[in-house]
Amino acid sequence: MKNYIALIEYDGTNYYGWQKQPDVITLQETIEKVLSGYFNEKIEINASGRTDRGVHAIGQVISFKANNKIPGNRLKYALNSKLPNDIVIVDSSEVDEDFHARYNAIGKTYIYKMYISDSRRPIYENRYGQCLRAVDIEKMREAAKYLIGKHDFNSFKSSNTSIKTTVRTLYSIDIKIDKNIIEIEYFGNGFLYNMVRIITGTLIDIGQGKYEPEYIKEILEYKDRTKAGPTAPAGGLYLKEVHYKQKYFKTLQK
Amino acid sequence: MKNYIALIEYDGTNYYGWQKQPDVITLQETIEKVLSGYFNEKIEINASGRTDRGVHAIGQVISFKANNKIPGNRLKYALNSKLPNDIVIVDSSEVDEDFHARYNAIGKTYIYKMYISDSRRPIYENRYGQCLRAVDIEKMREAAKYLIGKHDFNSFKSSNTSIKTTVRTLYSIDIKIDKNIIEIEYFGNGFLYNMVRIITGTLIDIGQGKYEPEYIKEILEYKDRTKAGPTAPAGGLYLKEVHYKQKYFKTLQK
Repeated sequence: MKNYIALIEYDGTNYYGWQKQPDVITLQETIEKVLSGYFNEKIEINASGRTDRGVHAIGQVISFKANNKIPGNRLKYALNSKLPNDIVIVDSSEVDEDFHARYNAIGKTYIYKMYISDSRRPIYENRYGQCLRAVDIEKMREAAKYLIGKHDFNSFKSSNTSIKTTVRTLYSIDIKIDKNIIEIEYFGNGFLYNMVRIITGTLIDIGQGKYEPEYIKEILEYKDRTKAGPTAPAGGLYLKEVHYKQKYFKTLQK
Repeated sequence: MKNYIALIEYDGTNYYGWQKQPDVITLQETIEKVLSGYFNEKIEINASGRTDRGVHAIGQVISFKANNKIPGNRLKYALNSKLPNDIVIVDSSEVDEDFHARYNAIGKTYIYKMYISDSRRPIYENRYGQCLRAVDIEKMREAAKYLIGKHDFNSFKSSNTSIKTTVRTLYSIDIKIDKNIIEIEYFGNGFLYNMVRIITGTLIDIGQGKYEPEYIKEILEYKDRTKAGPTAPAGGLYLKEVHYKQKYFKTLQK
């Protein structure tokens, strides 16, 4: 047996999210089927975390145990032609038997992409969110500062989830604008359900003048989802990188 | 009767190109059906030109005659909800009865988008071409200079087309690179079949060192398609703008 690790990129448009569910096509099931066929045994993969329906990944990380059929670094060559066009193995390797893609993760980077336009843009459909009006980027950056650090992000999670703690640490929020495209990159030790999308919706509200940047402090204190802005659509969200104590891959896609 | 003009954006991924054909779904047919239903008469639209299967448009222009049911500037509000998600009317207006979207066009701007990576990138699938290796942008820019001006572009057209003349004028080629993304913008008075895609494939060959920039002069002289580089894939190509003597639209999307 070997413990394999792989770096995966996917377009999540046509999947009901990462996690296996009955009667719908998921990323986990699609990849497990290809792996199980290749290794000729039932493979169960662990991902660094789930992604929701329509969310993409540039750098999702999975690990799984399988018989020793192929060196880890050859896995991508053997399997990419068997995967559908919207999933690719970017890199692959072998890891210690106790490595687990989720338990060993110490942080994640997400990126949220948006276009600014009051009419919808088919050429960005499913891969960008829509920002209806111009934004004041400086106000968004000012607001983002209040989110950096260790906070109870209870107001920034979808309310139907029960977890031990809603405290997370955000290390950075980087906001870029180039003509009509906004990209917001979030780096933190972990993210609650819909947290990136709710923060994004809130920052856009602030950029458009609905609230002042300081309102972020109040939202955090309220610990109430209804005080924050809307949940930005799934298609603009990308899991960009999963961080571990050790580097497992040579190349990370941008 | 009115002569309407409209600015259209579309993602061409799911269409067999612009022009109506039996047994396949095309952009022209899809839009004509919506217009015919709305105006309750058979509408035939003229576009500034065809786009091929999988090619997109940010600023395609169409014109069509129809009964006077609605002011031109309201057309987009009436029709966008009836169009599929991958087509949108960005702007609309009324024009003189002798205006024709194709005959009146005096120039076009195309943009070709590519990512650089030796493995395929699902998050760019269908909307970007793939450039397998790093390129020397300065060499590409040098090569592009030889294409500017009035030339016989016979070597840069797909060979199965018969037309009066293969002489065209290219006003500018603008090449940008940002990390792993290359964008090449072409502005000319007209383009031959596959011309932008073949020039793009040739510029990439030059950027990767397969030929020196001066080789462009030879390709032009040969008047032979086989001397130029490969045809870049359809998904990276966008018709960005159609130029007329007069401005018909307030807003042009970027």
